[in-house]
Amino acid sequence: MADQISDLLRLPDGPVNLAGHDPRATPGFPSKKGKQEQPALMAELATELGGLQERLFAAGRAQPRTAPSVLVILQGMDTSGKGGVIRHAAGLMDPQGVAIKGFKAPTKEELSHDFLWRIRREVPGPGMVGIFDRSQYEDVLVVRVDRLVPKREWETRFERINDFEAELAESGTKIIKCFLNVSYTEQGERLMERLDRPDKHWKYNPGDLQVRAKWDRYQLAYTDVLRRCHTEVAPWYVIPSDRKWYRNWAVAQLLTEQLRSLNLGWPPADFDVAEQRRALLQTI
Amino acid sequence: MADQISDLLRLPDGPVNLAGHDPRATPGFPSKKGKQEQPALMAELATELGGLQERLFAAGRAQPRTAPSVLVILQGMDTSGKGGVIRHAAGLMDPQGVAIKGFKAPTKEELSHDFLWRIRREVPGPGMVGIFDRSQYEDVLVVRVDRLVPKREWETRFERINDFEAELAESGTKIIKCFLNVSYTEQGERLMERLDRPDKHWKYNPGDLQVRAKWDRYQLAYTDVLRRCHTEVAPWYVIPSDRKWYRNWAVAQLLTEQLRSLNLGWPPADFDVAEQRRALLQTI
Repeated sequence: MADQISDLLRLPDGPVNLAGHDPRATPGFPSKKGKQEQPALMAELATELGGLQERLFAAGRAQPRTAPSVLVILQGMDTSGKGGVIRHAAGLMDPQGVAIKGFKAPTKEELSHDFLWRIRREVPGPGMVGIFDRSQYEDVLVVRVDRLVPKREWETRFERINDFEAELAESGTKIIKCFLNVSYTEQGERLMERLDRPDKHWKYNPGDLQVRAKWDRYQLAYTDVLRRCHTEVAPWYVIPSDRKWYRNWAVAQLLTEQLRSLNLGWPPADFDVAEQRRALLQTI
Repeated sequence: MADQISDLLRLPDGPVNLAGHDPRATPGFPSKKGKQEQPALMAELATELGGLQERLFAAGRAQPRTAPSVLVILQGMDTSGKGGVIRHAAGLMDPQGVAIKGFKAPTKEELSHDFLWRIRREVPGPGMVGIFDRSQYEDVLVVRVDRLVPKREWETRFERINDFEAELAESGTKIIKCFLNVSYTEQGERLMERLDRPDKHWKYNPGDLQVRAKWDRYQLAYTDVLRRCHTEVAPWYVIPSDRKWYRNWAVAQLLTEQLRSLNLGWPPADFDVAEQRRALLQTI
């Protein structure tokens, strides 16, 4: 059997060197032909992933107290493709079982609470796949780079995040953290495309350039995130993201493997099937 | 140009005779071959519907104060396929722009408020497509059939619903109300399938038979819903739903036509494109 993408993309333990992760790599992609084969592979994945997710959803309906849930956390620089992954990988699943939450700059009310307050409110219920587009990690990323709170405050958050994730895992949530690793060069090209195409202007914000100017500081902040919050129950996966077709396939494949590992069957009937069949037959 | 599905399925004005709507019909389906052609037609629709929805979403981001929104209301007897429509028709759109809300039996807190309270909290924001799996109409359907509130109370709700929908439409929400019209016979078969297949047991509930026993009372209640809440700004569409492949296509086609009618372009840039391009080039 081929290597699992979960093993190939899982951040290795030990020191973190982001520069050693090639954003153009395509590890584990099962075809030599590359891009052209991707749609067929996605269609296959859609069938398996859809089936796995339906079991998860069924468990949530039938056994809400014990059913697991899944939380996918997407982090990455602008244009790394968090939205694309949601559309193309999460989009393979039944939307009824997927809860997507984007975390933008916190509101006044959110700021008046602890940084995890707004996050806790959005964790997926039993049987659901939650997708976080940005997350608690912004509170040690943009907050750190832009010095929005003092160092002594954000420094404590790595540990707080680890505790939170451990607690979440303990309560039955499988956590899949994806760092979409895009290169500085590719980001430049994607931003240019947004400027070149009128149908993409709405995605562009002059503020994007200010963030881009802080690239190195973000890489440093991400390195600390990967180093300090890579745990057994909530590991990081580094997704090479310069090739969109690979990135979308890799996340879909990772999701499929992780859902597969839950080993879910169909929930047994909690009623007498034969008796119900007889009763139904009388109405036909 | 072929007849619009919006015209073919729109409930005619005047008296309502549900028995006159054939649940096995396939009006407007553009192929003589029927079922076999459906996947190709859905793939075509996915491209157009996806593009239309992206414009709606873009409008919501760029002009949140004026952007329209869309609300799809799904009603129908058990097994009519509300879930299937969400998966196969709503599933064609980017999940980031779709907000799905299922309304189950109201909680204690919800019951302590007016019946529209929980509904109002879930209306789609600008640029979003909201999908209601059941809705305010349950408050004149199950509530009426099971006598959960006195007649003098639910009787007033038709008008209250009309007022609510008129207000919603006035504020820029396109309302698409779909009654998934399944036959008594087909419901019996679908329930039997849920009993026959272990992978479908979780969808079955012995209470389904009790509801089925009240079929005629529900048809009467639905007839009143269609008759009294069919308005210019929020018309009902009756979707023949005995054939799943037709039902899913019809709702996807209806959504496409309705989104098309919004005539949305791409939002113009609210920044100086040439200036941003120069600034970006300096970073490359």
